[in-house]
Amino acid sequence: METSTPSYSPTERTQVKRRSQRGVYDKAQVHAILDEGFICHVGFVLDGQPYVIPTAYARLDEQIYIHGSPASRLMKGKEVDVCLTVTLVDGLVLARSAFHTSINYRSVVVLGQARVVTDPEEKERALVAMVDRFFPDRTAGLRQSTAQEIKATSVIAMEIEQASAKIRAKGVADDEEDYDLPVYAERIPVRTVLGAPEPCPRLRDGVERPASLRGYAEGRLLEEALREAYFLRYPGG
Amino acid sequence: METSTPSYSPTERTQVKRRSQRGVYDKAQVHAILDEGFICHVGFVLDGQPYVIPTAYARLDEQIYIHGSPASRLMKGKEVDVCLTVTLVDGLVLARSAFHTSINYRSVVVLGQARVVTDPEEKERALVAMVDRFFPDRTAGLRQSTAQEIKATSVIAMEIEQASAKIRAKGVADDEEDYDLPVYAERIPVRTVLGAPEPCPRLRDGVERPASLRGYAEGRLLEEALREAYFLRYPGG
Repeated sequence: METSTPSYSPTERTQVKRRSQRGVYDKAQVHAILDEGFICHVGFVLDGQPYVIPTAYARLDEQIYIHGSPASRLMKGKEVDVCLTVTLVDGLVLARSAFHTSINYRSVVVLGQARVVTDPEEKERALVAMVDRFFPDRTAGLRQSTAQEIKATSVIAMEIEQASAKIRAKGVADDEEDYDLPVYAERIPVRTVLGAPEPCPRLRDGVERPASLRGYAEGRLLEEALREAYFLRYPGG
Repeated sequence: METSTPSYSPTERTQVKRRSQRGVYDKAQVHAILDEGFICHVGFVLDGQPYVIPTAYARLDEQIYIHGSPASRLMKGKEVDVCLTVTLVDGLVLARSAFHTSINYRSVVVLGQARVVTDPEEKERALVAMVDRFFPDRTAGLRQSTAQEIKATSVIAMEIEQASAKIRAKGVADDEEDYDLPVYAERIPVRTVLGAPEPCPRLRDGVERPASLRGYAEGRLLEEALREAYFLRYPGG
């Protein structure tokens, strides 16, 4: 009987070395951070020079999809090593010493081979996910993509071959003797929230905001809206 | 007479290729994004594999400092090529087609050589900046760092040798003929804000929140607080 939680095996490359007590390899936790995130930073190497490009992404099972253009410098039909990192910031931690001044965050580092998606069905599934993962069922109501748009949009996939998450989620953690010092210390939560939606000024008369966007309400946490949208559209996770 | 704005020269490596109208090389704009940001993603190469690690940073003039530990895999006294990227997300843009669905953001990509800071004065200046850039004058009131802490903390510097910013800051931008479609479209602002500060439960009696933290008030934009703190501490920019 399988009783352990599915997890990614730490490898020499993904093992969290610094503050290793913050390392997490559990698949559910890695997926949760990926699905509550929105922008990833993709690293790739070109002529020995590393590049780090921010872009939106969508996870479907163990595949992560991004638009190919950010990597257009390097993909020429071949697979390349990439590192894809997602970071959610949760707070600032002001300790009584510089050494313990810290940040609360959740991050995931994924290593894998990136490939250009050539199969038309997979490409369509990925392009739909890149919209519907944020806004469930939105693709179906949009002006259909033209053949030229689809051709102009390259999609890159990477399988989650190796992954690790790193999480700090606590208050001030000072050296025991420092708690007696007359130094002020606190945690400041940081939250990424949605503002009031601004309808396009050129909406056609009678076009209303669809119910499927209800989750994107003013003041709501972005990560909550993203998580909810993801599970509405992809209930299996 | 010098009349042009100081800017970074676009090079083959930093020229913004995709949607090049979004590219910005002006130093003041690059600095502004760096100073309103908080977490960077640092890319480096080890045995051909790219790694992307999130970490806090501080800019002093044309140097960016980070704690060395995230790069501990690779620095061995030598300089290495790195790419440091900062991304601020400002909104989601729901267009009438998948193709024009977009994100409002400001990002900076910096290329340069990373070096371990060995000069004690530069190291101290960097360690102070790593706290005071967020919380002006805080270092002076903290328990002083021990020699062992300073030894255990490596600091990495990179000069901004090449940099480019990329900005999208507008509403829905559909193909002209699509505005007539009965499809809902909107922009949703995204903001990173501060929560209510949570004082450490183990504060010594009588220790009050210092006035220098006033900028970190509940509901305030993180980037505003960061920018204000930076200019309080480093008025010259």
